[in-house]
Amino acid sequence: MSLIVHKYGGTSMGSVERIRNVAKRVAKWQRAGHQMIVVPSAMSGETNRLLGLAKEITDRPNPRELDQIAATGEQVSVGLLALALQAEGLDAISFCGWQVPIKTDAAHTKARIESIDRTAVQAHLDAGRVVVITGFQGVSPEGAVATLGRGGSDTSAVAIAAAFDAAECLIYTDVDGVYTTDPRVVADARRLSRITFEEMLEMASLGSKVLQIRSVEFAGKYKVKTRVLSSLTDPLMDLNDEAQSGTLITYEEDPSMEQAVISGIAFNRDEAKITIAGVPDKPGVAYKILGPVAAANVDVDVIIQNASHDGTTDFSFTVHRNELAKALEVIQTKVQPEIHAREITSDNQIAKVSVVGIGMKSHVGVASQMFQTLADEGINIQMISTSEIKISVVIADKYMELAVRALHKAFGLES
Amino acid sequence: MSLIVHKYGGTSMGSVERIRNVAKRVAKWQRAGHQMIVVPSAMSGETNRLLGLAKEITDRPNPRELDQIAATGEQVSVGLLALALQAEGLDAISFCGWQVPIKTDAAHTKARIESIDRTAVQAHLDAGRVVVITGFQGVSPEGAVATLGRGGSDTSAVAIAAAFDAAECLIYTDVDGVYTTDPRVVADARRLSRITFEEMLEMASLGSKVLQIRSVEFAGKYKVKTRVLSSLTDPLMDLNDEAQSGTLITYEEDPSMEQAVISGIAFNRDEAKITIAGVPDKPGVAYKILGPVAAANVDVDVIIQNASHDGTTDFSFTVHRNELAKALEVIQTKVQPEIHAREITSDNQIAKVSVVGIGMKSHVGVASQMFQTLADEGINIQMISTSEIKISVVIADKYMELAVRALHKAFGLES
Repeated sequence: MSLIVHKYGGTSMGSVERIRNVAKRVAKWQRAGHQMIVVPSAMSGETNRLLGLAKEITDRPNPRELDQIAATGEQVSVGLLALALQAEGLDAISFCGWQVPIKTDAAHTKARIESIDRTAVQAHLDAGRVVVITGFQGVSPEGAVATLGRGGSDTSAVAIAAAFDAAECLIYTDVDGVYTTDPRVVADARRLSRITFEEMLEMASLGSKVLQIRSVEFAGKYKVKTRVLSSLTDPLMDLNDEAQSGTLITYEEDPSMEQAVISGIAFNRDEAKITIAGVPDKPGVAYKILGPVAAANVDVDVIIQNASHDGTTDFSFTVHRNELAKALEVIQTKVQPEIHAREITSDNQIAKVSVVGIGMKSHVGVASQMFQTLADEGINIQMISTSEIKISVVIADKYMELAVRALHKAFGLES
Repeated sequence: MSLIVHKYGGTSMGSVERIRNVAKRVAKWQRAGHQMIVVPSAMSGETNRLLGLAKEITDRPNPRELDQIAATGEQVSVGLLALALQAEGLDAISFCGWQVPIKTDAAHTKARIESIDRTAVQAHLDAGRVVVITGFQGVSPEGAVATLGRGGSDTSAVAIAAAFDAAECLIYTDVDGVYTTDPRVVADARRLSRITFEEMLEMASLGSKVLQIRSVEFAGKYKVKTRVLSSLTDPLMDLNDEAQSGTLITYEEDPSMEQAVISGIAFNRDEAKITIAGVPDKPGVAYKILGPVAAANVDVDVIIQNASHDGTTDFSFTVHRNELAKALEVIQTKVQPEIHAREITSDNQIAKVSVVGIGMKSHVGVASQMFQTLADEGINIQMISTSEIKISVVIADKYMELAVRALHKAFGLES
């Protein structure tokens, strides 16, 4: 008898009728002989409603109280789902984070899980009960309700699967898996039957937003077999037939599979670029530029510094488009008086396109193939950055779809 | 520096604007030098919405899960009120029942408070914080959320006031106190500036529904000075000037006051009467009749058994009108085959009218004055029942208003 964790998003929990459907699916899994833990999100819209109330009271709500309020959406969900499971004839019981307890740090609204106590929940599982546990929340060292931030229920589900040595963690969502790229851009994008968690991390952080990124880190760190699949999927499936459904996020490369060099193409047009040209090339200049930007709470993504000539260098970085104005102001008022650069320019008509693949580690030539493909399409590359399993380029955003389609084809990712 | 508990009902918490008004009032009390604990109800309509969701899932929801769901309304309220207090410049923190902890028994949906731990809350009070605690809920011996039932926030407030030795517990509501009778029936009904908790118990259970009855029992048992007053009342008041606002429920008779014989006239037209005539007058017959009724979960109020003649007696009792059909069915199918009574009749056109007053203890003649007043108005009395501080009569409901007005005048209760 294996333990399985199911996680359901807000859409799956969006109405009484849908909650009944979730209960029916869980019932089939339980009756097939699995021990079941279910982690539901708040009903769709509920978290926004609650945060909206708090925002009406004050623009800058205290994070502890915000968590006290926001966590109730998941509490309602576990109660309703337990009732629906009971109505299906199952023995079921709900737990809030503090009841398990799921202990977190004190970083309200973005808390991290520190430990999960198995004792109480295990006793109910052993007694044949389906245990329904709130996503998104835990209890802080001070005994306050702490939430994990947006999408935190994914992380809850994976962390619970890790704590209970679950055979698999199934994340039911509104897509049926992870694709080689966005099917809205490339019609013949292909569903990946498996992806390593490292690739998934690069895909997720680059814009193929399927799972909360911290849940993927958790899956990797604690070696949790995590599967993303559609909530419209058949109620029960053979977990050994991995091609059957969704995308399995694995913690190891599978030597039995012919490993593709590239798993997917990610892209992102939410960024803007700032270039500071003619910066005196002295030690500490990168810190002089980015220190004030970070102090203003502006997140920086790609950072490029070119080799210098004539004792000066060009320094470029990207920020979220919404933060371009703020970043530019910091550069002009706090940085430029210190560094006396020749010119400061910005561009918000950019896109970032990345090829991601664990196979890249052992294959040379991915970068050159990528650059050649873009050159063949007449697409100019403005910035390049690389990691072990990813190569990203910044290009003019009007070429983004063209670049994605060309790369998808060049790396043979079609169905 | 004295500790004051404020309790606010769902109407006072009904919108962001109203929550801000509550925060403004609490701020004035705090700045006047009081330590403050505030117990808010769920926003009006919220508990019904939550119970409605559960009811949609199943007609017979599991009580533990129902509590898990229903308790979230108060959790949202404490968070929002803490935010509003902070926006007023106060240091404030919210607590759920389990965080205090407020320990209850395991009787979900109608749990009783067993203990309240002062430690954590007291530390925050001592640090100058306003502490906002959920009404309506606590934590069961199994660590589950348990609710106290409808109106339970009144009980929470009084129990918290008792645990913290509060100088006074102020229950803000939509009436400005307890009246000699319902002002909608008797125009010159008078607000009582004080009432003993025993009188309040009789008034509350007889239909002058201002406070949850268990909160009054608590106030009496633990000698908590509890005041019912309007949420439209002036923000701050002199607690020593007790005539100033609301009605103070005291645990002692005040020898300094000229004690009225009668405090008020209560009434109730929610009941129906069943009479079983010609019951063999044998030991155990009352149990034979009421045992099956109680087993069917039908609450019985007034019970009358007359002296017997010819070896038989007449037995009458009242039940809630909504339960008359159920009670009659029990009597006809389960009781009558055992007792072979001569006749079973019922009447749902009745009303109960009661005079209540602690002064009745030492004054003879209240009953005769009551009966004479009704006789003068030509009102026939169908049933009579008495306690130490109350006399109730059942009459035809068409005479109810007439009876209440006549008694109010006869006992000199006008303003």
